[in-house]
Amino acid sequence: MSEITIEQLQAMLDGSPFICLLRMRVVSLDREKLQVVVEMPLAPEFERHPGTQQFHGGAIASLIDVAGDFAVVLQVGAGVPTINLRVDYLRPAIGRIIATATVRRAGRTIGVVDIDVTDEENRLVAIGRGSYGTTAG
Amino acid sequence: MSEITIEQLQAMLDGSPFICLLRMRVVSLDREKLQVVVEMPLAPEFERHPGTQQFHGGAIASLIDVAGDFAVVLQVGAGVPTINLRVDYLRPAIGRIIATATVRRAGRTIGVVDIDVTDEENRLVAIGRGSYGTTAG
Amino acid sequence: MSEITIEQLQAMLDGSPFICLLRMRVVSLDREKLQVVVEMPLAPEFERHPGTQQFHGGAIASLIDVAGDFAVVLQVGAGVPTINLRVDYLRPAIGRIIATATVRRAGRTIGVVDIDVTDEENRLVAIGRGSYGTTAG
Amino acid sequence: MSEITIEQLQAMLDGSPFICLLRMRVVSLDREKLQVVVEMPLAPEFERHPGTQQFHGGAIASLIDVAGDFAVVLQVGAGVPTINLRVDYLRPAIGRIIATATVRRAGRTIGVVDIDVTDEENRLVAIGRGSYGTTAG
Repeated sequence: MSEITIEQLQAMLDGSPFICLLRMRVVSLDREKLQVVVEMPLAPEFERHPGTQQFHGGAIASLIDVAGDFAVVLQVGAGVPTINLRVDYLRPAIGRIIATATVRRAGRTIGVVDIDVTDEENRLVAIGRGSYGTTAG
Repeated sequence: MSEITIEQLQAMLDGSPFICLLRMRVVSLDREKLQVVVEMPLAPEFERHPGTQQFHGGAIASLIDVAGDFAVVLQVGAGVPTINLRVDYLRPAIGRIIATATVRRAGRTIGVVDIDVTDEENRLVAIGRGSYGTTAG
Repeated sequence: MSEITIEQLQAMLDGSPFICLLRMRVVSLDREKLQVVVEMPLAPEFERHPGTQQFHGGAIASLIDVAGDFAVVLQVGAGVPTINLRVDYLRPAIGRIIATATVRRAGRTIGVVDIDVTDEENRLVAIGRGSYGTTAG
Repeated sequence: MSEITIEQLQAMLDGSPFICLLRMRVVSLDREKLQVVVEMPLAPEFERHPGTQQFHGGAIASLIDVAGDFAVVLQVGAGVPTINLRVDYLRPAIGRIIATATVRRAGRTIGVVDIDVTDEENRLVAIGRGSYGTTAG
């Protein structure tokens, strides 16, 4: 369970139609830190407005939700439900974005995760925090 | 500016590639209450897992963000940036979902909006609260 | 358990040294709606700055936490832990404040509560939303 | 303005009756990182229940609000209003608690701050995130 690989994690992402729609890819994982890195390319259909090269906030929130979720998956070994999600938008993103999700507290019933989102120029564009159920699995 | 119509609001939604991708439609608006109702159909590509008929949480968060945003548009008369967003997931949704966004405070620089999401059986499936900038426009 | 009275609720508040320090009083409760109303007087030591007649935001957050907590107590019949809390400050409060807490979702493990805070002039000064554990008790 | 000292920051805290009531002390500040550390002793009147040695959540939320606020003061040079505040409670705290507030984004109109709270045994007991207005001052 704690031996989950990037390939297995990616297969879990690919099993979700909505995550496929947003073309998210697992970049790396760290089982010790309970940390997962997920990226999302900038496709024209993810833009806020045509030609701006800026993601819609909903796409960014989705990436944050998924990255946070899979950080808890590292702990629990199976998909977990999101209880709640908080997103602060800090700057417009340039190009593809990367979310780094780190479990802050892996509790018996709830896991709390921080998710930092950076863009191609490595600027912090959004930060998220989510609570996930950990009894599933 | 305060005379914005459903058609104009829908045209603003249709001008956003990401909102088009999620096929959101304005159902109604109330200029007095600063309230907007937006719906999203359940398409296979929005599902959490294939065949579950359940939206992925990121799609629900996106609907909440958009509905909240356009409630503030009623006040401001133009698109506004999301500052931050909180989403609480209460129950799995059955079928298409509807978000009712109501401005709680229309301030000079910030608007705060509550968004209730119900499903086909009119059950409350998620609630959102967002802060939006109001100086744009 | 569902027959809890105002006097019993007030006794629970009075059993908490911090709640006593802030002199909170239960105004009313509604067991059907899972709704509790709690007030807090404006004492000089609760002010943000001397003589402003304005509460410090921490005092307002405390009132919101307590009111939300006791709305869930109506459901559970015993004290419950706060999982997380969001507070939006909308306007400076004039004089004593009143929090109306309403359970939005009473789940098996988590309750989600909305808390509206109004001042003496019945203006909405802050809104809160909290998640509370419901397995205790 | 950027040359604010611990003594000046403490004097600002002492100018607030509510902060005095909770006996908060500035431990350190870092002007480069826009980081402030504030501690709060465990007094009997701050307890959730008598003799538990556990802070009420409202006191913890208040410490988080104040620490976040004064991290932004380092940037702005004057007191700033809290726009909203999010608190996740992770574990019961043992003894006095310390909040480390770090500005994540110092914007023209809004500053976003992360606040970590640890107890005497250096365990992470709560995490906060706040938005503050930065146009004041």
